[in-house]
Amino acid sequence: MDADAVARAFVEHYYRTFDTNRAGLAGLYQDNSMLSFEGAKTQGAAAITAKLTGLPFQQCQHNISTIDCQPSGPAGGVLVFVSGSLQLPGEQHALKFSQMFHLMPTPQASFYVLNDIFRLNYA
Amino acid sequence: MDADAVARAFVEHYYRTFDTNRAGLAGLYQDNSMLSFEGAKTQGAAAITAKLTGLPFQQCQHNISTIDCQPSGPAGGVLVFVSGSLQLPGEQHALKFSQMFHLMPTPQASFYVLNDIFRLNYA
Repeated sequence: MDADAVARAFVEHYYRTFDTNRAGLAGLYQDNSMLSFEGAKTQGAAAITAKLTGLPFQQCQHNISTIDCQPSGPAGGVLVFVSGSLQLPGEQHALKFSQMFHLMPTPQASFYVLNDIFRLNYA
Repeated sequence: MDADAVARAFVEHYYRTFDTNRAGLAGLYQDNSMLSFEGAKTQGAAAITAKLTGLPFQQCQHNISTIDCQPSGPAGGVLVFVSGSLQLPGEQHALKFSQMFHLMPTPQASFYVLNDIFRLNYA
């Protein structure tokens, strides 16, 4: 599978899981994974999942605008850069965001998220 | 130097060079470097520099809003995620952008850009 296919499949899986079963994101992170969410850093699958499931909204809907990806070096990693919008319940306007993921291969021929950086795009 | 210090120094250097001597960016890329600029991929220092110096504006001014960074694994890489705005001559409004860099260490104890992804934030 090439980097583009990995990226598209990951993005589809990640945001669908986020929007329908956020706790299920735990399986995408490992102990050395790091999340920067609006500037706040969290490390490790358990802490990252707690951060994401503890965000102050229950329902949400991500809509993806662009996906860029590049292979990230000899270790087989893939960098994924996403832009899109996040619709929250009761909010008239969706929030624009940018997010990047550094995916690393696992021994099971899958990928986990080593690095995850999320930022809202403030106007 | 920790990842935060590397990231801040790189961002300051990169955008100052972009705004004052764009051809000087060549030294920051290597043959395996890749740029995705608004979805168009370019590989290698020479081609990337040609792409950047060939953009259809001569003068510009980047203003940085946020810098996030994380170490990117055992090879000593650093991921840098930047948001900011780009002021072009004759344009009333600055363009918001998001950009990520994957920096890798060199044998000279410096860093080069392995991955570079740039996207304007469309409203």
